[in-house]
Amino acid sequence: MDVVVDGAARMGAVVGAAKIVVSGAGIDERLLAPLYGLGFQVVPVGRGEPLTAQALRHELADAVAYLHGGEEHVSEEALELAYGLKVIAFLGIGYETFIDVAAARRRGIIVTNTPERTPDAVAEFTIGQIINAGRRIPRHLGTVYPHWTDAGELPDELVSKKIGIVGLGQIGTRIATILSRGFGCRVSYYNRTRREDQERALGLRFRQLPELAEWSDVLVVMVGGNAETAGMIDHRILGRVRPGTILVNTARACVVDPEALRDALAAGLLGMAVFDGYYQDSSVAKDLLNDFGDRMYVTGHIASHTKQSMERMTRQAVASVVNLLNGRTDANIVVR
Amino acid sequence: MDVVVDGAARMGAVVGAAKIVVSGAGIDERLLAPLYGLGFQVVPVGRGEPLTAQALRHELADAVAYLHGGEEHVSEEALELAYGLKVIAFLGIGYETFIDVAAARRRGIIVTNTPERTPDAVAEFTIGQIINAGRRIPRHLGTVYPHWTDAGELPDELVSKKIGIVGLGQIGTRIATILSRGFGCRVSYYNRTRREDQERALGLRFRQLPELAEWSDVLVVMVGGNAETAGMIDHRILGRVRPGTILVNTARACVVDPEALRDALAAGLLGMAVFDGYYQDSSVAKDLLNDFGDRMYVTGHIASHTKQSMERMTRQAVASVVNLLNGRTDANIVVR
Repeated sequence: MDVVVDGAARMGAVVGAAKIVVSGAGIDERLLAPLYGLGFQVVPVGRGEPLTAQALRHELADAVAYLHGGEEHVSEEALELAYGLKVIAFLGIGYETFIDVAAARRRGIIVTNTPERTPDAVAEFTIGQIINAGRRIPRHLGTVYPHWTDAGELPDELVSKKIGIVGLGQIGTRIATILSRGFGCRVSYYNRTRREDQERALGLRFRQLPELAEWSDVLVVMVGGNAETAGMIDHRILGRVRPGTILVNTARACVVDPEALRDALAAGLLGMAVFDGYYQDSSVAKDLLNDFGDRMYVTGHIASHTKQSMERMTRQAVASVVNLLNGRTDANIVVR
Repeated sequence: MDVVVDGAARMGAVVGAAKIVVSGAGIDERLLAPLYGLGFQVVPVGRGEPLTAQALRHELADAVAYLHGGEEHVSEEALELAYGLKVIAFLGIGYETFIDVAAARRRGIIVTNTPERTPDAVAEFTIGQIINAGRRIPRHLGTVYPHWTDAGELPDELVSKKIGIVGLGQIGTRIATILSRGFGCRVSYYNRTRREDQERALGLRFRQLPELAEWSDVLVVMVGGNAETAGMIDHRILGRVRPGTILVNTARACVVDPEALRDALAAGLLGMAVFDGYYQDSSVAKDLLNDFGDRMYVTGHIASHTKQSMERMTRQAVASVVNLLNGRTDANIVVR
């Protein structure tokens, strides 16, 4: 436990029954011990469907801190009554998709995230889904004989495939490493800045995004979700892919434009589309699940949910909350 | 096309409307062109459920050759009327699970298999199922929010797991390579003969089978199916595993004793069991699918079914049939 736990006597104004809201079902309560130890009232919320703005507003009205480990959106409205809220500790990196940053800033609420995480949880999940999409394993579960209708339906081997990775950050690099060193795939990438070190180390090739889309059999999207990357995979990019391409988006859904996605699925340019975490406010995207359900593997933002990564994130978020409620600074502040 | 196609005029006795039976749904008919070209009558059978012995007996009664690419068992009874049958070309390696070798030998039927195959199809499928079983991905498909009920349910990262591989043949070695070099897992193995070359190259450790079972978080079974390996994973072995161990059997089902499997699932020693190809004659095993369905990922012997590997196997089997019907020898004879 690397959280510095001050004596309760030193907590001054915030000690007692001050309330800390904790959302998300994957948090091990034992890791919240430092908060209990300091005498806070720890209130878990939103373990099923994400909280509505109204429900969240109600919960935050008397809270001093908020560990965000769920899927709820922290809007202006949700923060309206949060007069005592000092810190939102976001579990994960991409807080901008979930928190109205301007609204938090206006209220003087500090936001932290948990940047120190290892890439394995998401990278391993992504590899699993690349294989699932390529081999259609879920469709065959529960069968005891092969159910091919003809040979044209047989899948390709991964080793024969060209993999394009959009975003060569920590996770993208881990995915590239596993595919290149482990499976022996040919891997190219696009990144805002070229990574010649990784090109040499892993035998990767840099391609501009439209060229990458055209080259790839499997296009893996792994960039942060923010204003700059929203809709980055649009008609211009998906119009370039070859028929049957597999799109694997284990980044934020919004990086892929939902209308471009629909058109590429309808035209057969995309053979399969994989998402972890789905559009929450797009009627086009909701229709896709009905129209192309057998060609979409959608999961609910679980790629980063492993014991190891949730523990790492929870420890960091708890440490940030303890630091900031004690009037200290914290290394993981992203909004103040 | 590396099949030597003799002129039809040279085919002598077997040319004309001589019949070749071809089973299995994954065979690309274009690869059968050499057989059509020689004037054979090519009859596809058994594309749905495996043929019964009676149905197969009927089909083989007037056949000269038989490409076995399906799931049917070639029993004594099935061969009873096959007076003209010269060759059974088995697609794959483990013909002994499917063909009554003694019965074939008594009738002077030559059996070939297709040993020259690359290990990628099965190895990639196995990796996919290791991730599926560890992360329970299929259970989350079609959800748009995480459905954890509590943190205890969160999965472990693969990189943190100890993987034991039973059988370090070509496929087992490929699986070990991907897990070790790609994912960075700790990998141990058991093999009839130690492979010190691979231990050095991949950083593997040899363990005797009971010790391997006890050590492993994931136990991967990848040995040939024959009289020697049938029931190899029995009560003695499964009694040693730690609670929650994942068993991945992409070899023949029979390598795992079904009663030992039942007891290990019932006791919680096995958290998940993965099979590709399932027991055809065990009532115990059939009950397992009802009793522990949510902890078993069963597929119908599809791991080796990729375009690339089916093409390779079909080409080899066709070449063997052409060779043997032409009175030449063949490199892939396993029974004569």
